[in-house]
Amino acid sequence: MTSDSHPFAGDPVFDLHLGGKLETVATSPLENKDDLSKAYTPGVARVCEAIAADPEMSRHYTWVPNTVAIVTDGTAVLGLGDIGPAAAMPVMEGKAVLFKQFGGIDGVPICLATTDTEEIVETVRRMAPSFGGINLEDISAPRCFEIEDRLKADLDIPVFHDDQHGTAVVALAALVNALRITGRTPETTRVVVSGAGAAGVAVTNILLGAGIRDIAVTDRQGILNSQRTDLTPVKRSLAERTADNFGRTGSLAEALDGADVYIGVSGGTVPEEVVATMADDAIIFGLANPNPEVHPEVAHRHGRVVATGRSDFPNQINNVLAFPGIFRGAFDAGATAITEGMKLAAAEAIAGLVGDELRADLIVPSPFDPRVGPAVAAAVAEAARIDGVARI
Amino acid sequence: MTSDSHPFAGDPVFDLHLGGKLETVATSPLENKDDLSKAYTPGVARVCEAIAADPEMSRHYTWVPNTVAIVTDGTAVLGLGDIGPAAAMPVMEGKAVLFKQFGGIDGVPICLATTDTEEIVETVRRMAPSFGGINLEDISAPRCFEIEDRLKADLDIPVFHDDQHGTAVVALAALVNALRITGRTPETTRVVVSGAGAAGVAVTNILLGAGIRDIAVTDRQGILNSQRTDLTPVKRSLAERTADNFGRTGSLAEALDGADVYIGVSGGTVPEEVVATMADDAIIFGLANPNPEVHPEVAHRHGRVVATGRSDFPNQINNVLAFPGIFRGAFDAGATAITEGMKLAAAEAIAGLVGDELRADLIVPSPFDPRVGPAVAAAVAEAARIDGVARI
Repeated sequence: MTSDSHPFAGDPVFDLHLGGKLETVATSPLENKDDLSKAYTPGVARVCEAIAADPEMSRHYTWVPNTVAIVTDGTAVLGLGDIGPAAAMPVMEGKAVLFKQFGGIDGVPICLATTDTEEIVETVRRMAPSFGGINLEDISAPRCFEIEDRLKADLDIPVFHDDQHGTAVVALAALVNALRITGRTPETTRVVVSGAGAAGVAVTNILLGAGIRDIAVTDRQGILNSQRTDLTPVKRSLAERTADNFGRTGSLAEALDGADVYIGVSGGTVPEEVVATMADDAIIFGLANPNPEVHPEVAHRHGRVVATGRSDFPNQINNVLAFPGIFRGAFDAGATAITEGMKLAAAEAIAGLVGDELRADLIVPSPFDPRVGPAVAAAVAEAARIDGVARI
Repeated sequence: MTSDSHPFAGDPVFDLHLGGKLETVATSPLENKDDLSKAYTPGVARVCEAIAADPEMSRHYTWVPNTVAIVTDGTAVLGLGDIGPAAAMPVMEGKAVLFKQFGGIDGVPICLATTDTEEIVETVRRMAPSFGGINLEDISAPRCFEIEDRLKADLDIPVFHDDQHGTAVVALAALVNALRITGRTPETTRVVVSGAGAAGVAVTNILLGAGIRDIAVTDRQGILNSQRTDLTPVKRSLAERTADNFGRTGSLAEALDGADVYIGVSGGTVPEEVVATMADDAIIFGLANPNPEVHPEVAHRHGRVVATGRSDFPNQINNVLAFPGIFRGAFDAGATAITEGMKLAAAEAIAGLVGDELRADLIVPSPFDPRVGPAVAAAVAEAARIDGVARI
């Protein structure tokens, strides 16, 4: 491949991408007529009959229970926004590579030529017999919430929007360890989340589920609270469960004054003088990629524990710590859904892997730590059984 | 895997199927942060941007142009009929294995939870950005005709129903060689096709395209001709182009009396006394699986050239001789469709591979003959360019 000429030949990223990053292969070789007669006609007919007689047989004799569809409409791809399904494909292929590498899962990129909520839900429902789970990816808010909710209701396989929950799980894991380091407890910690899109909603929900009480969520217009008349139903629900309970109103700057934790999932930049008003030993997670809301240099001048989404700084909040193990655990337990309990268990497992090396610049394991996938999977499978959604 | 206990452990077919027959794998390894930063963020964003700026870049930097969706609704699976999408999966996985082995193509099984024509067409249209081509499989007649026609009209990637055209191409290749052996010409050969479903319609159409004139097609009620009042539009169209031109009426037995060629794609059994009325040096293709319409033992008593769909007799009419090379050629030429010319070229290429060894019990090459895929692909790509549907 490297000797092939192509438009961006010589650029290592494009050289790596030549021909795409994914392929389908047989799990056992087809060498002769005998193999063919077992893998295809007439032998395969007996396997079809067995499944037709007992659908549970699909679990043993097809790839379906180990397969996740990676579904996008291309409307919220990385930091690029709405670039459409064709341009989204390299990200989806990459996701499939990560699912395999870190979760042993077969990922299939599905880039859809529609952005209509109804049509997306319909389409995924119709293709659902092909897959063991659905990973929604890079679908913009607020449609992503309804799409995920509808598919969770309609399907009996796990449905998971990674931009929401993968981010949330790893952010929670990092926060758990950051609270440990700074001697804080969830109930007494004041958190500000900037951004009320997919990630912001999910981060806030998981923090509430983990026992954090005092949260203020901001969008471009400031803190979400019920005095505002411009809130979508999703944002109103957040407001009622966060700032309303503490009477918080005003701007991001007002929210951050004296706050213990800042989690940025909005993009933009928080002015340094605002960062400086946070509490002592502040915890600062600027997760926008590639430009964190608070650059680590600035963050270190005012905070104790600093994280970003970037791989070139310590404490990378990387979704890959979560989604492969979450699906692996869900599949191992034959789970029909990914519950809140399973997500919390994943976060605890990730946080727990840091152990004795825990320090301000090491609050999450490395994505390449081989313990991560299995530990998350085991915790998630256990949680699935506790939550009564496991079939194995 | 072999040590795992499973419900049919010890049965070689089920042992082979444990865990399914397919997996997705990365085309290059992800070993460290540097690889990750090229295959995923931030490097992958540059590839997305390149495609967003110029959709042609997808051809170089994604797996899409080499990928075929293998789409079924499970209504006509092998000889098992309507067993549904879940039970159809082993066949679709097998198809993907064959696409890879013989065509170097990445196949993705898509088993749909709907049998509605409109919904199937909609669903495939919406997922189309994910694939370089669509292979429709095991969708029952007559819906399969409309589904294929509609998708061919809507999409600018190749759409191909293998049960129709794969069968037809290989049957034509075999017939071309059988005519050679028996010293016949297309224009003067009388053919009977039993079965007016997917395969029968396509076989008849390709024979007409290859210059065969005198064809009688039968269904359970006998010869399709315009005197009948019970014909679907598809069957009426066949009648008008076949039996009507030669005044043929009556039963299969009447059609076969003095016929040169019998092609069975109906199932059932042709009584021996009827086979015996065929012309001298008859050509008898009983293609139903696993029970040919004319068993080879019977056929050899009355015919000169005999073929079936079974691997345990000579002259297996196996679609795998066609579909991998047809898609390979279409993909190599960047073809937007699979034209009649491309199918005829495939048939000629397959027939031509037999060369000097041509004899009554060797009229088609073996599926494992490594020359088949490349020869078919080259002929099909050339035909695509001649037909003006090639972009490469």
